[in-house]
Amino acid sequence: MPLYATNMRMKFPVLALILQALIIVLYSVFVVYDDGKSDHSDNHTSGSHGEHPLALYPMFQDVHVMIFIGFGFLMTFLKRYGFSSVGINLLLAAFGLQWGLLMQNLWHMSNGKIKVSIYRMINADFSTATVLISFGAVLGKTSPVQLLIMALLEITIFSLNEHVVVEILGASDVGASMTIHAFGAYFGLAVARMLYRPGLRNGHENDGSVYHSDLFAMIGTVFLWMFWPSFNSAIAGTPEQQLIAITNTYFSLAACVLAAYATSSLVEEKGRLDMVHIQNATLAGGVAVGTCADMNIGPFGAMVIGVMAGIISTLGFKFLTPKFASKLGIQDTCGVHNLHGMPGLLGGMAGIIATALHKKEKVILSSHPTLGIVYSPWYFRLVFYFSPTSAFPQKQAAALASSIGFALVGGAITGLVMKIPFWGQPPDQNCFDDSVYWEVPEEDEENGESMTHADHSKSKTEA
Amino acid sequence: MPLYATNMRMKFPVLALILQALIIVLYSVFVVYDDGKSDHSDNHTSGSHGEHPLALYPMFQDVHVMIFIGFGFLMTFLKRYGFSSVGINLLLAAFGLQWGLLMQNLWHMSNGKIKVSIYRMINADFSTATVLISFGAVLGKTSPVQLLIMALLEITIFSLNEHVVVEILGASDVGASMTIHAFGAYFGLAVARMLYRPGLRNGHENDGSVYHSDLFAMIGTVFLWMFWPSFNSAIAGTPEQQLIAITNTYFSLAACVLAAYATSSLVEEKGRLDMVHIQNATLAGGVAVGTCADMNIGPFGAMVIGVMAGIISTLGFKFLTPKFASKLGIQDTCGVHNLHGMPGLLGGMAGIIATALHKKEKVILSSHPTLGIVYSPWYFRLVFYFSPTSAFPQKQAAALASSIGFALVGGAITGLVMKIPFWGQPPDQNCFDDSVYWEVPEEDEENGESMTHADHSKSKTEA
Amino acid sequence: MPLYATNMRMKFPVLALILQALIIVLYSVFVVYDDGKSDHSDNHTSGSHGEHPLALYPMFQDVHVMIFIGFGFLMTFLKRYGFSSVGINLLLAAFGLQWGLLMQNLWHMSNGKIKVSIYRMINADFSTATVLISFGAVLGKTSPVQLLIMALLEITIFSLNEHVVVEILGASDVGASMTIHAFGAYFGLAVARMLYRPGLRNGHENDGSVYHSDLFAMIGTVFLWMFWPSFNSAIAGTPEQQLIAITNTYFSLAACVLAAYATSSLVEEKGRLDMVHIQNATLAGGVAVGTCADMNIGPFGAMVIGVMAGIISTLGFKFLTPKFASKLGIQDTCGVHNLHGMPGLLGGMAGIIATALHKKEKVILSSHPTLGIVYSPWYFRLVFYFSPTSAFPQKQAAALASSIGFALVGGAITGLVMKIPFWGQPPDQNCFDDSVYWEVPEEDEENGESMTHADHSKSKTEA
Repeated sequence: MPLYATNMRMKFPVLALILQALIIVLYSVFVVYDDGKSDHSDNHTSGSHGEHPLALYPMFQDVHVMIFIGFGFLMTFLKRYGFSSVGINLLLAAFGLQWGLLMQNLWHMSNGKIKVSIYRMINADFSTATVLISFGAVLGKTSPVQLLIMALLEITIFSLNEHVVVEILGASDVGASMTIHAFGAYFGLAVARMLYRPGLRNGHENDGSVYHSDLFAMIGTVFLWMFWPSFNSAIAGTPEQQLIAITNTYFSLAACVLAAYATSSLVEEKGRLDMVHIQNATLAGGVAVGTCADMNIGPFGAMVIGVMAGIISTLGFKFLTPKFASKLGIQDTCGVHNLHGMPGLLGGMAGIIATALHKKEKVILSSHPTLGIVYSPWYFRLVFYFSPTSAFPQKQAAALASSIGFALVGGAITGLVMKIPFWGQPPDQNCFDDSVYWEVPEEDEENGESMTHADHSKSKTEA
Repeated sequence: MPLYATNMRMKFPVLALILQALIIVLYSVFVVYDDGKSDHSDNHTSGSHGEHPLALYPMFQDVHVMIFIGFGFLMTFLKRYGFSSVGINLLLAAFGLQWGLLMQNLWHMSNGKIKVSIYRMINADFSTATVLISFGAVLGKTSPVQLLIMALLEITIFSLNEHVVVEILGASDVGASMTIHAFGAYFGLAVARMLYRPGLRNGHENDGSVYHSDLFAMIGTVFLWMFWPSFNSAIAGTPEQQLIAITNTYFSLAACVLAAYATSSLVEEKGRLDMVHIQNATLAGGVAVGTCADMNIGPFGAMVIGVMAGIISTLGFKFLTPKFASKLGIQDTCGVHNLHGMPGLLGGMAGIIATALHKKEKVILSSHPTLGIVYSPWYFRLVFYFSPTSAFPQKQAAALASSIGFALVGGAITGLVMKIPFWGQPPDQNCFDDSVYWEVPEEDEENGESMTHADHSKSKTEA
Repeated sequence: MPLYATNMRMKFPVLALILQALIIVLYSVFVVYDDGKSDHSDNHTSGSHGEHPLALYPMFQDVHVMIFIGFGFLMTFLKRYGFSSVGINLLLAAFGLQWGLLMQNLWHMSNGKIKVSIYRMINADFSTATVLISFGAVLGKTSPVQLLIMALLEITIFSLNEHVVVEILGASDVGASMTIHAFGAYFGLAVARMLYRPGLRNGHENDGSVYHSDLFAMIGTVFLWMFWPSFNSAIAGTPEQQLIAITNTYFSLAACVLAAYATSSLVEEKGRLDMVHIQNATLAGGVAVGTCADMNIGPFGAMVIGVMAGIISTLGFKFLTPKFASKLGIQDTCGVHNLHGMPGLLGGMAGIIATALHKKEKVILSSHPTLGIVYSPWYFRLVFYFSPTSAFPQKQAAALASSIGFALVGGAITGLVMKIPFWGQPPDQNCFDDSVYWEVPEEDEENGESMTHADHSKSKTEA
C-alpha cells in the first residue's frame, strides 16, 4: 500500500482555479450570446424552424434536474458517502458543462465564435452526463482531484466521438444510448479496471446503504425517471419528432418498471424486492430506447425495449456485477454497466434494427408530409439515401463500435493518468467515506449516535 | 389469524409480467402516435386551438412530478415504510398510466386507434392518482400483489365514472375534485373497510413517524403544493381558462396554508403544530377548488374555499379519523378522507353553487368576447342551456353522486377481491414494515443503530 | 431572562386568521383575473409583446420551486430544526405571496383593480424571497408569531423600496441583487441585531448539523442552483433579454461552484471541504450576477462575477460570520450576509460598472435591431438618456443605497416590534429546537434512538 497524501489543500484549489481561469480566457475569446441568427449547418440554434428562442427552455431545465438532482442523489445510497455523491456531482457537472460547451462546438463556430443557445446548453449538460456515469463506476475510491482530471479528459474524448458519430458517420442517436450511456459506462469501467484495488476484494463495511440513504437515492431515481422523456427528445429535429421521442420514452420507462420489479422479486429466494434494482433497473428503459426514441417503432415497440432493458439490467446487478469484480478486476460501485452499459448496447442494437426496418425514414416523411407529395417517392428516396443525416444500419453499427472503442481506449488512458499516486486518492480503508475530503459533522458523544432526541423532553417550556 | 404466505416470488412476477404482456398486445393493436390531426369531439388533441404539439408538456411534467414525487414521498412519513411508499407508488403509477390510457380512450378512438397526445398522457397520469389516493387508505396493510389488482380494477371503474360524468352528464370538473379526489378517497375507504384488521385496533408500533421520515414526507407535500395549479389547469379548455384555473388554485392553496396552520395550533392543548396536519391539510385547498377552478369565482372566492378546506381537513385528522377507525372499522392510514374525501365533497358542492350562480358561463363568455357581441344575450343563453358541455347545478350534483356511488360500490367489490388470502397480505404484526416485501439494509451490529459514525475518527488519513 | 410564554394556542391562530380574513376582504375589493388587456405602463401583463398568457408559466414554476423547496430545504441543515425550516418557510411564503401581490400592485392599478397575471404571480413569489432570506438570519431564535409580523412589515417595506428603485429612480435590477438579496440580508441582519441573545454567545448544542440534515439541505441548494437562471430572467423585458439573463446566470453559477470549492478547501487546514460553504457559497454567483444579468457583460464577464462571488462568500462564512457574532452582536444563523448580503452588494456594484460601460444599452439596441436603423444614433441616444427605464451608473448607485437604507432602517424598526416579549419567542436553551412549536415524534424508548431496526429481524414472516 503506497502512502497516500489525501490532504487536498493545495492540489485541489490550484487545479480547480487554473481550470476555471483557463475557461474564462477561452470564453472571452470564443463564446458570445446567441443572436438568433442561424449559424451552423445542423439548424439547431434558437432560431431553428422559426421557434421562440426559449422554446427548449423547459426541457433544458428538466435535463438540468436530471444532471444535478438525478445523478447526484442516485449515488447517495452509500451510507457514508452522500456529501461526495451530491457535492462532487455538482462540482464535476459545473466544470463539465463549461468545458463541454467549448469542446462540442469547436467544430461548429461561425466567424470564430460559439453562440450560446438553449440547444447548446442542453448539449453541454449532456456532455457532463458521461462523466457522472463514469463517476458511478469509481464512486468512493477516487479523490476530487482525480475526478476533475477524469472530467477534463472524458469530455474531450466524448466530444471527439460525438463528432465522429454525428458529423462523420451521420448516425442517429437522439437519446444518446450510444454516445452518452454506453460511452460513459465503458469509459468508467476501463478507468475502474485501471484503478483496481485488490484490498477491496472482500468488500468494505461502508460499501452499502442504510435505510435513509436508500430513500435519498430514490429522490435521484424518481427525478431521472420522470424527466427522461425530456432527455431523449430535447434535441430531436422537429416538434413532431420530439413528441414521438417523448411518447416512446414514456412508455418504455413505464414498461421497464414492471419488468424490473418482477425480475427483482424473481431472483431473490424470498421474493423480496431489492432497492439496488429498483433504484437503477427501472431507468434502463430510458437508456435503451434512446437511440430509436425518435423513430417510428410504435408505443408497443418502445414497451418491448423497456421490458428487455428492465430484465437484463436487473439480472446484471444480480449476477454480472459480482463476477466483474471477482473475475475481471472491475469494481463497479454503482453498477453502471447494468444501468448504462448493457442498456446502452441494447439501445444501439435496437437502433440498428429500427433503421434496417426504415423506422427512421417513416418519421421524417410523416413529419414533413408535403415532402412526400412534392417529390415523387423514388426521387425522395434517392435524396434520402444520400443525405448525410439519414440513418442506416451500417452507420448505426459503426457509431456503436466507435463509441465503445473511444470509451475503452480513452478510459484506459485516463485511468492510467488517474493512477499516478500524486492525486490524493484515499487508502483502501478510507474508501466510501466522506470524512477524507469533507468536514463531517461531529456526532453527539453518547454512543456516536447522530439523531439523539433524548434531551428534548427536558427542555420544553410551557406557557 | 390466517397463515399468510408473504413470499411473492411467484405470484408477483407472474402477475406483473402477464399484465405487462397484455398491455403490449393491446397497445400493438390500438395505440399509435399522435399525428396532430384532431380526431375526437372534445378537441383536446395536440392540435387543438392551433397550439404547438408540446404546448402542454411543461404542465404534463408538473403533473408527473406530483404523481411520482408528490404522492410517493407524501407517504414516506411512516418510520419503516419508506421503500414501499416511494417504490410501490412508482410501480402502481407506472402500471396505471399504461392501463389508464387504454381505459380512458376506448370511448374516443378514431378509426379504431388511440392517438397518444400530451393531453392524453396527462389524463393517463391523472387516472393513476385515484389509485395512489386509495393506496394511502390501505398503506402498510397490503401486499404489492393486492395493490396491482386494486390498480387494475380501480382505474377501470374510474374510467367508467369519468365517462359518465363528462360525456353523459356533461358536468364540469376541470380539477377533478369529484372524479379523482372524492372518487379515490371513498374507493380507498371502502377497500379499507373490507380489509378491516381488528388486530390493529390498538395501533401498531410502526404506524408512526420519526423525525427524518417526516422531513422526507415534506418533499412530497411541497411538490404537490407547488404544482397543484398545473393539475387543476392542465386540461382546461383554453389558455384563458387555464390562467383562471392557475390563479384560483394558487390563491386557494395559499389561503389554505394559513387556515391549516391556525387550526392545527388551535386544536392542540399546547398550541403546537402537528406535522400530520401540515403535510396534508395544507393541500386541501387544491382539492377543494378543483371543480370550479376554471370558473369565475374570483380570487377571493378561491381563498374562501381554501380556508374552508384547510379547516375541515385539519379537524378531520384530529377528530374524525380516530372515530372512523374505532366506530366504523375504517383504518385510514394516511387520512385520505381528510385530504381527498371531504375536500373533494366540498369541491363538488362548490361546483354546484358556482354553476347555480352562472360562474362557469361568465368565463366562457369572457374568454370568447366576440361571442357575446355576435349573438344577442338571450340567444346565446339559449344555445348555452342546450350545449352538452355546459355545466348546471343539477348536472354537477349528479356527477358528485355518480362519483361517490361508483367509488363506494367499486371499492367494496375490489376490497372483496383483495381480501382473498392468496395475495400475500402481511400478518398484523408485520404491517407498516418494509422488510416483508423488501430487502432492508443490514444495520451495524452495535445496538441496531443505523448511522454510526464511531469508526470515522479512527480511520482518517492525514497528508 | 424574561419568562417566555411559548404556547401559541391563541396568539398564533388569531393572528393568522385575522391576516387571512383581511386579505380576503382586500382581494374581494381589489383583485381580479387578468383579461389579457395590457393595463399598466411597464407592459408586463400576460399580453405584453403579444405573448401567450401562459408564456411565463414554466419560469413561474421554477421560481416557485426555489421559494418553497429551495429556501425551505436549504435551512434544514440544523439537526433539530427541520420542521420549522420547511414548515415555517411554507407558512411565510404562502402568506407573503398574498400580501406581496397587494403591496406591489397598489401602485399599478387599472380602474382600481389589480389584474393577476403570471408575471405578477412571479413578482409576488419574489417578494416573499426577502422574508425567507431574513428568516435565515434569525432562524431558530424566533416564534412563528414573530415571523408572521416580520413578513407583514418586511414585504410592505420591500414594496416601497422596489417602487422607489424601479419607478422613481428607474434603475435596472432584473435579477434583484439589490432589491431582494441585499435588501433581505441587511433587513434580516438588522432584525438579528435587535434580537441579540447574549446567552447564545458561546454557541448552542443544537446550532449545528448532523449527517442527514446536511443532505436534506443539499436538496435546497441544488434546486436553487438549477433554477436560478429562471429567477434572474423571468421578468426581463424581451425573450432575447431573457436568453441573455439565462446565459449569464448559467455561467456565473458554474464558475462560482469551482471558486467556492477551491476556496473552501484552501481555508481549511486539512484541505477538506466544508458543507456550509458548499450549501451556500455555490449559489453566490446567482445572487451577484442578478443586477446585470440582462446586460451585455459577455459569458466570460458573468464567470468573473461568479468566481468573485464564490470566493468572497466562502471567506465570509469562514472569517466574517464569527466576527459578526462576537463583535457586532449579529448572530446570523444561516450566514445570509455571505450568501445574499455581500454577493448582493457585489451585484449592485457590478451593475454600476456595467451601466457605466453601456452594457445595458447594447442589449436593448441589439434586441431591437430596427430601432438602431430607423433612428439616427445620436437621436436614439438622446431618447435613451431621457427614458425612464434606462439605466445609468448614478441611478444604479442610488438604487443600491436606497435598498440598503430601507433594509437597515426597516429591519431595525421591525426588530424592535418583534422584540416585544408577547410574541412567544423561545428561551435561549430552546433555540434551534422544533419541539417548542411542533409536535415532534416520540422516539423509541431504548437510548432515545430514532431509527432502530432492532425488532425487524424478529418479526419477518416466511412463506
